[in-house]
Amino acid sequence: MPLPLVLTLGEPAGIGPELALLAWLQRSAEKLPAFYLRGDIELLRKRAAQLQLNVPLAEVTPQHAASAFPEALPVVPIGQPATAAAGVPDGTSAAAAIASIRLAVEDVQAGRASAVVTNPIAKSVLYQAGFAHPGHTEFLAELAASQCPDQRAPQPVMMLWSAALAVVPVTIHRPLRDAITDLSSELIVSTARIVNAALRRHLAIATPRLAISGLNPHAGEDGGLGTEEQTIITPAIEQLRREGIDARGPLPADTLFHDAARRSYDCALCMYHDQALIPIKTLAFDRAVNVTLGLPFVRTSPDHGTAFDIAGTGRANPSSLIEALRLAARMAAPARS
Amino acid sequence: MPLPLVLTLGEPAGIGPELALLAWLQRSAEKLPAFYLRGDIELLRKRAAQLQLNVPLAEVTPQHAASAFPEALPVVPIGQPATAAAGVPDGTSAAAAIASIRLAVEDVQAGRASAVVTNPIAKSVLYQAGFAHPGHTEFLAELAASQCPDQRAPQPVMMLWSAALAVVPVTIHRPLRDAITDLSSELIVSTARIVNAALRRHLAIATPRLAISGLNPHAGEDGGLGTEEQTIITPAIEQLRREGIDARGPLPADTLFHDAARRSYDCALCMYHDQALIPIKTLAFDRAVNVTLGLPFVRTSPDHGTAFDIAGTGRANPSSLIEALRLAARMAAPARS
Repeated sequence: MPLPLVLTLGEPAGIGPELALLAWLQRSAEKLPAFYLRGDIELLRKRAAQLQLNVPLAEVTPQHAASAFPEALPVVPIGQPATAAAGVPDGTSAAAAIASIRLAVEDVQAGRASAVVTNPIAKSVLYQAGFAHPGHTEFLAELAASQCPDQRAPQPVMMLWSAALAVVPVTIHRPLRDAITDLSSELIVSTARIVNAALRRHLAIATPRLAISGLNPHAGEDGGLGTEEQTIITPAIEQLRREGIDARGPLPADTLFHDAARRSYDCALCMYHDQALIPIKTLAFDRAVNVTLGLPFVRTSPDHGTAFDIAGTGRANPSSLIEALRLAARMAAPARS
Repeated sequence: MPLPLVLTLGEPAGIGPELALLAWLQRSAEKLPAFYLRGDIELLRKRAAQLQLNVPLAEVTPQHAASAFPEALPVVPIGQPATAAAGVPDGTSAAAAIASIRLAVEDVQAGRASAVVTNPIAKSVLYQAGFAHPGHTEFLAELAASQCPDQRAPQPVMMLWSAALAVVPVTIHRPLRDAITDLSSELIVSTARIVNAALRRHLAIATPRLAISGLNPHAGEDGGLGTEEQTIITPAIEQLRREGIDARGPLPADTLFHDAARRSYDCALCMYHDQALIPIKTLAFDRAVNVTLGLPFVRTSPDHGTAFDIAGTGRANPSSLIEALRLAARMAAPARS
């Protein structure tokens, strides 16, 4: 029996717990791989009752999760109660969310789970409890350090994936002015190396085709509309090609995402947040998956937040979590074999 | 009989002439409004022969163009031969392209045509012949000045339109760094006023809903990811709302273009080129239309260039020109009535 996926609790007061319930209910229709939740079974029981969802829960060890999965949503305890009501984070939120992430990473590192799928957390809640990492992904990178050769946290790379398009923003959550300043050949090269290695290893693409966007309109039009293509992006592409990586560009971003263009590459590396996220959210708003590349294990996540405003109302849509579970199993499979 | 549209020749060596032939051949299937070409009939005859297109041509005055249209492509002379072969601009290109634009504007100003549809020109070719305008649109604005109250060229605003989405980039062909610097509340306000007036007048939308994007990721996240939303964009929106214009935002650009979001507005005003052009070219690559708002007449254009590399090969796709003709007729109709 293949290893199950471990799904984190996420923010207990957010939609994560109910997404787990809703995804499990669709396990047959969506042909979902077996997964278990690292969380507090009482919280799940309350949320199921609140939403009148008929989901049997089974408190199990990771070893018994896969066999329990067809009949019940397997829950593996985290030794930490989570009492927050839907939409209302309380003092237990931070500790429970953090414990779930820690234990999920331990599970995948110990070979008890094949990959980690994370439910959304609320950084502002965690910060109040003394959480000292810039975000979810950086925390995972820290936890992964012990598995890395030099014990240092690896560079995590965010990919947004959907069946229609995969994109990687080279700079992410930065004011646009600063994203331009941050851009460097080194950053593009190190990001592309990680993407290339991950697509080879986890998506079994022998020679990934990486489309590298320009920064400026029309990719700078030979310098007439900006020079970063010539000074930063083209040198990075030349370096990557010397390393045998199929990197092409700089390509004008506006003509990079229509049907025919998308068939010409496996992943687009974009220079800033909106350049990457506009096309994938236009094409696959509900089903895009957030994937962290560069970690020693596979980690995916639904591409949305905690949605406190609709938590507990029954309006949460599990599509993105379902895609995240499916992609995590697919990406973990070659590594597992 | 309604007034015909006037279509310019565009760059004689580009795909414009053959697009006119191909569009005319689809006049019944696509239910196209009557149009005539302002150009050299000999050039059209040669291009039709080269491509083995069976298109009868009728040299007419604008007054007889609409009645000739069902049986032949009406061509109104420009007093200027165009000898350029497909793909190879020659000395006649600039003079013929410029004469066609001038005469087309005269036609619409004199009430002989309902709107102007322009084929693509090659600015580099025109510059060699002493053309002194930054581009096609600015030239049209200069030609329109005589119709404006103060005889000054109006501020032209570029809208990209498709059935799925209409967008206006507030800054256009500028390096991204400079687009950020150029952005001002005044520019957003003056652009939005023109869009609002044009959608009311030409698309018969009583109260156009204008979605205004943010500049930074997540529209700046209350200042955490950039301040231009607070210092520039929000004050512009407040000014517009005081004027009774339904402007909303600043809205995160990545979540502005999926199906449900698009139904909530009539036009999205975006802060820079790629923010506007990525979504429309992702959704409607072949059929997007370039529309100039703010002129005293309607002007549309296919959203592509001269394509010298495929001119004369039979591979040019008239979809965008067909949409441009259709939209021009629709936009001219209320003004005409």
